[in-house]
Parts: sequence; C-alpha cells; structure tokens
Amino acid sequence: VKAVLTYGSSGVFAGVFDLGEALAWADREGKTIGEELRRIGYAGDRAATGHAVAAYLEAHIEQGPLLENEQKTIGVVTGCMGLGWFDVTLTGQESHAGPTPMHLRRDALVGAARLIREVNRIGNAFLPESCSTVGEVYVRPNSRNVIPGEVSLTVDLRHAEKKKLDLMVVDFKKALAAIEEEMGLRAALKTVTDLPPQPFAKECMEVVREQAKALGLSHRDIVSGAGQDATHIARITPTGMIFIPCEGGISHNEKENATSFDVTAGCNVLLRSIIALANGGD
Amino acid sequence: VKAVLTYGSSGVFAGVFDLGEALAWADREGKTIGEELRRIGYAGDRAATGHAVAAYLEAHIEQGPLLENEQKTIGVVTGCMGLGWFDVTLTGQESHAGPTPMHLRRDALVGAARLIREVNRIGNAFLPESCSTVGEVYVRPNSRNVIPGEVSLTVDLRHAEKKKLDLMVVDFKKALAAIEEEMGLRAALKTVTDLPPQPFAKECMEVVREQAKALGLSHRDIVSGAGQDATHIARITPTGMIFIPCEGGISHNEKENATSFDVTAGCNVLLRSIIALANGGD
Repeated sequence: VKAVLTYGSSGVFAGVFDLGEALAWADREGKTIGEELRRIGYAGDRAATGHAVAAYLEAHIEQGPLLENEQKTIGVVTGCMGLGWFDVTLTGQESHAGPTPMHLRRDALVGAARLIREVNRIGNAFLPESCSTVGEVYVRPNSRNVIPGEVSLTVDLRHAEKKKLDLMVVDFKKALAAIEEEMGLRAALKTVTDLPPQPFAKECMEVVREQAKALGLSHRDIVSGAGQDATHIARITPTGMIFIPCEGGISHNEKENATSFDVTAGCNVLLRSIIALANGGD
Repeated sequence: VKAVLTYGSSGVFAGVFDLGEALAWADREGKTIGEELRRIGYAGDRAATGHAVAAYLEAHIEQGPLLENEQKTIGVVTGCMGLGWFDVTLTGQESHAGPTPMHLRRDALVGAARLIREVNRIGNAFLPESCSTVGEVYVRPNSRNVIPGEVSLTVDLRHAEKKKLDLMVVDFKKALAAIEEEMGLRAALKTVTDLPPQPFAKECMEVVREQAKALGLSHRDIVSGAGQDATHIARITPTGMIFIPCEGGISHNEKENATSFDVTAGCNVLLRSIIALANGGD
C-alpha cells in the first residue's frame, strides 16, 4: 500500500517518498507541487536527499489535552503512533421509509452506525496508546424519507505498538465482516494508508528529559498520536521531539493557543538539548 | 407544529392547508406555486374548497414489498400511518483524531451512531404497523483525521395508531436525553412534521374487498406507510385505497415497475368499487 503524501518534504528528505513522485503530486485542481514550487520561486537545485544529519529534534504543541490536564510543561516524546487509514462503503437497498417494513429493510446507515460504534470500541479495547476515529460519513441518497442504500465512511486506527495496531486492524475487519453477514449488506474496503509506529531514539529522549529536569520543568513521557516530520526523519538519524501544552488540545484551528511561559520553556529545552547532543550528550 | 406542504393540492382541497399559504409556498430558488401555476397556464378561477364529494377512492402501487412477497394482487388499504419528523443536531468537541485520547473525547458522530441504532430499535419495538428511519446525516467538519464536533440528522417515526406513535416519540426523546447526558454531548431537537394516523372508511374497505373477491383476486388488508392524497381527503369524505404489487417495493425511482396483470386488476377493482359505491354499496 502506497502511503499518501503526508509530511511530504520530510518524507522526500528521508527517502520515504520519491522526489519525482512527490513533485508530480497534484491537488484537486491538477496543480502539482513541482510546478507550484517553480511558480513561487522555491524550486532549488540542491539535492533533496543524501545529507548527513547527526541528530534531529523537533518542538511542537502537543495537539492533545494530556499535558494541560496534568499540568506538565514538557512532553518527552517517545515516538509516533502507527496508523491505518481505511475507506469503507456499505451497500444495502434504497427504499421508501414509509412502506418498507422493518424486517425487509437493508439499511446501509444502520450498518454504518454499528460500524462507527465498533470502531470506537476497538480504540478503547487496546489502551493505552491507542485510538480510533470515524471522521467522514457520506449517505446516499441522503433524503429524509428514503432508507439509505449506500454509506461511505473513513476509519482511522492508531497504536504506538505495531503488534497491537495489527490486532486492531484484524478486529476491525472482523467487525465489518459480521455487519456484512448479519445485516444483509455488502462492504467494500480500501486501505488508504498503512504507516507503522515510529519509536524515537533513546539518546534523544534522555537528553530532552535531562534538560527539562535541569531547568526545573515538570515533564512526562508521551506518545505522539499525530504523525510528524520527525516520523520520517527518525528513519535516517537519531530523532526526538519536545511537546508543550496547548489550550484544550486544539490545533489546526484559529483557536490554537499556547502560553508564553510554555513556548519559552519548550525553546529553552530545545536549545539546551541541541547543545548537549552536539557535545555528545551530558 | 405546522406540517410541511405534502400532498399540497389535496390538502388545500380538504381544507388542511390554507390556499393563500399554499400558493405562497416557495422552492429553494424562491419560485412560488402560485406564480408557477400562472406561468404555465394552470391557475384557474374555480374555488379550491367546499366541493361536495360522496366518496373518494385512490389506486396506487404499494411502494413496499408486502403484496409481492405474499403474492397477493389487491391490497385493501385500512389507512395511513401517522408520522413524526424531527431534525436533531448533536454537538461535541471537534479535535485532532491522533492526539486526543479516547477518554477525553466528545465525539458527536459516536453519539449519532448510538441514536441511529436507537431509532432503528424503536421502529422494531412497536410492531406491527410501525417503522422508523434516519435518512439524512451531515457530519462537521467531515474530515478524515478530525473527531466530528457536530452531526445533524433527520428522524422519521411512523405508526398506524396515534397512541403508539406518541409512545415512539417519548421513547426517542428519552434515548436522545440519555445520549446527551452519558456522552457529554448537547442535543438540539426540532419537530418538523407531526401528522396523526388517518384511518380509512370501513364502507370503502368493505367495497374494495368485495370487488376483489368478486373478481377472484387474492387480497389482504394493508396499512399505507406513506402519506397519500387520500390521507387529506379522508378528512372530508369516506375514503379508501386500492394497492397493487410493485417490483421490489421500489417507487419514486426509474426502476419502478408493476405488471400489466396487476395494473388491470387494480383498475377493474377501482371501477367496480366506484359503481358499487355510486349504487349505495352492494
């Protein structure tokens, strides 16, 4: 399964994605990354890969609520969760919501509702460091008095351990097969992305933890539920991340907010960690 | 609660809807029924209400699968189910699908999935002559890696008995309140339409049944899950309906189909019933 082009530039830099394929990647209007880089004057001639990197550290807001909830300033990131993305389409029989008796229905939305709750159950069944989400739903024909004949939805499964993530996927596929069989529906399943968990380097975690301690900052180990540039770079060099709290766990949103105290603390830990790594650890 | 303008012309004829309000009814582009009737030359000057009607009979495909499944030719319609239409919006907290731990989520879609299954349960709990459907779902922001913050959906509850329909509505509201409380969501509920069941006249059913027998046609009593023109007309005169089978219960669709045999049979029952009623029954 070919991954979608997420954190594309880091992915090319780390050799995860092919440069030519990445430059040819097009948006919905057909504009490619390569053409747009040339158009805005950002297409350089330096090689995108093959650079020697001693280590990589990335500072980021948590994008989740754990540090804020526990009033910790620094998150020592232990790695990124692996991720399975799926597209599911359930097909039943579109029919009139009045005259079709309950026992003769094949309602794709009732099947989808069962699947949404199964996906939620799976995220809770593999705790800690697991989660699961249905983010998109499309109902056809989506009309008030018509029994839905077809429903498409997206499934997002994540876990910090490869073995557990694989079990989550097996559990999900079993649930889908049961819905198909027991509810008279047909299911089409497409794997969209399949990224393994990416643990970070022990030496980087150790340095970040030590610098937080040295600055008297509260801290905890934390796994990144989101993918990051660091996820790709970790394949080619020792990598770590520093999280700071963000308000309500909200990110990619106009409401995103972090305090000056936390941002300053994160930068200081980053600076001191870089110096420490450059000096061979301390 | 004001009903939406369904079977509008019959509704005006029977005094269910006001003529002026019906003519002012506008589509999404703002075109009104009154202006469009004038434009196409169909606006007459005869009074729309107050006509004396001795009886009313309507022939129709079943729009459901019962007659076909049981290989019966004529459905003696006993009345139309009552109907409650609702719009529900569930609001939780939109957040990033990766970094937000399961126990800190307020996922509006997981709540909606529970509601969809509750609505389906209610339709099955008040059998026979009950049904329930969620036909439309809108998820916001509807993005693969964002926990849905808001979901809107439509609920359609039907029953042939007023008392049972009221109990279905109570059950539905209870389920919605439980979801709100137990899942940390807010619910907004709007009643869109509230139509009581409409039983048909015993004398019309009797005539239809007798004529089917006289023609040697198999028949059964049946309730109409859909509203009909007859639903409104039944308020002002003795009313009955004659159903014939349709292929797969499919209607309002290019695939709609009925056999010549069944259409002929339905027309013959209609003709003989009209004559019998005109002669004072037989």
